[in-house]
Amino acid sequence: MEGIGVFDSGVGGLTVLKALRKALPGEFFYYLGDTARVPYGTKSGETVVKYAMQNAKFLVSVGIKYLVVACNTASSYALDVLRKELSIPVIGVIRPGAEEAVPVTRGKIGVIGTRSTILSGSYLREIKKIRPDVEVFQKATPLFVPLAEEGMFYHPITLSVAEMYLAEMRDRKVDTLILGCTHYPLLKKAISEVMGSDVRLVDSAESIARHIKEYLKITNNLSNSSGGVKYFVTDSPESFKRVGEMFMGEEIEDIELIDIR
Amino acid sequence: MEGIGVFDSGVGGLTVLKALRKALPGEFFYYLGDTARVPYGTKSGETVVKYAMQNAKFLVSVGIKYLVVACNTASSYALDVLRKELSIPVIGVIRPGAEEAVPVTRGKIGVIGTRSTILSGSYLREIKKIRPDVEVFQKATPLFVPLAEEGMFYHPITLSVAEMYLAEMRDRKVDTLILGCTHYPLLKKAISEVMGSDVRLVDSAESIARHIKEYLKITNNLSNSSGGVKYFVTDSPESFKRVGEMFMGEEIEDIELIDIR
Repeated sequence: MEGIGVFDSGVGGLTVLKALRKALPGEFFYYLGDTARVPYGTKSGETVVKYAMQNAKFLVSVGIKYLVVACNTASSYALDVLRKELSIPVIGVIRPGAEEAVPVTRGKIGVIGTRSTILSGSYLREIKKIRPDVEVFQKATPLFVPLAEEGMFYHPITLSVAEMYLAEMRDRKVDTLILGCTHYPLLKKAISEVMGSDVRLVDSAESIARHIKEYLKITNNLSNSSGGVKYFVTDSPESFKRVGEMFMGEEIEDIELIDIR
Repeated sequence: MEGIGVFDSGVGGLTVLKALRKALPGEFFYYLGDTARVPYGTKSGETVVKYAMQNAKFLVSVGIKYLVVACNTASSYALDVLRKELSIPVIGVIRPGAEEAVPVTRGKIGVIGTRSTILSGSYLREIKKIRPDVEVFQKATPLFVPLAEEGMFYHPITLSVAEMYLAEMRDRKVDTLILGCTHYPLLKKAISEVMGSDVRLVDSAESIARHIKEYLKITNNLSNSSGGVKYFVTDSPESFKRVGEMFMGEEIEDIELIDIR
């Protein structure tokens, strides 16, 4: 059965998978978490391209009609190479995040992400390509990832951390905030409470789903099966299951440990 | 010049290095942070042994008379192999941590560490080997690492996190707490405030320093130079410098990027 492939360095991409399953319930998904080599953010571009290519080739060998790179670092570095080497369409998370934010902003977009994502400036560049006159405020918010992995989605401590990181953006009247890390949608309620209910929080998942749907429609490839997911990890299925079930909000049954090298 | 070698998967081992420099000011140190492959805690034992051996052989090639494995995961898995393969003495962080705690406890020792350290039960085993009748309480405290790396050593949020993790241990009247992760000595003040001033906080560094001093004295190998450190990393010297200087409380000048594979 031809499915949709999604890979990330670890569990973060599960928030993208969750949104895609909701938007495309008739599709079957293959999710690969490269847990043996997480995180990608601290590795060189060359290394990240190599890992991304290995992940993509594995998913292609399983049988996919579309590839989602649900990882900011791999989206930054590897998208061009993957598109050149693969014969199926490939989408990342950065351009779709920018496409989601630009049409709704009144002029001030905030971007939050890991330190490496913010340092790369990749969201800033994509936003400016679409609309150069938008003001962009960037902020690295590294504690959000471990807070999400601890399951503290709406905990008083998470609210304090959000206040610490986001007060400045709120005071600068940012009206649209890009959640530039796949972990962050889990903290939406806490982030929104700090930013205020009039600030739009956007992530890449909805825009990605739209792109995929459109492509599958045009190519007459939309599936109407009962859907489902098969998971692959490169290390520690137990800890992937523990954190992954919290992220997906459902039981994760079918996890296969693979050796990708 | 023959020095003392210290390696860790990243920056955490710098707290051990800092304590060793203070205790052995006449020695020259070589510190290797395997930043390209951090973290070790999520990797298989086999992989960790391979990495530890590569790190050790690199430091031996530079010229060392003693090796400190300043990483809990590598200490758990690789110590026996390293001792068998190398002709210099090798010390880890787990046994010394237990040796530091057992003589001072009134019967209840707490151990905090990363999830993988706590799951491994390695401190528990070493404590029980020395004194089987001690009660041991273990707790994984994963948020402490990113809090330390954000420089929030004594921040209100850090105090709240410490309260969340440690209230139960305090209520169970733990009298001695092993800081079972090399990042944690940076949070000593916050941890002590939550546990109470009558609870002894111990880490491995002092015990390691005593072992090294004794060995170098016996073998007539103590150095009386002006001391110093040379740093090696396997990726991102810039971010190592940024976090490392915060950890060491001094400027880090001499960092060399190496390819260890």
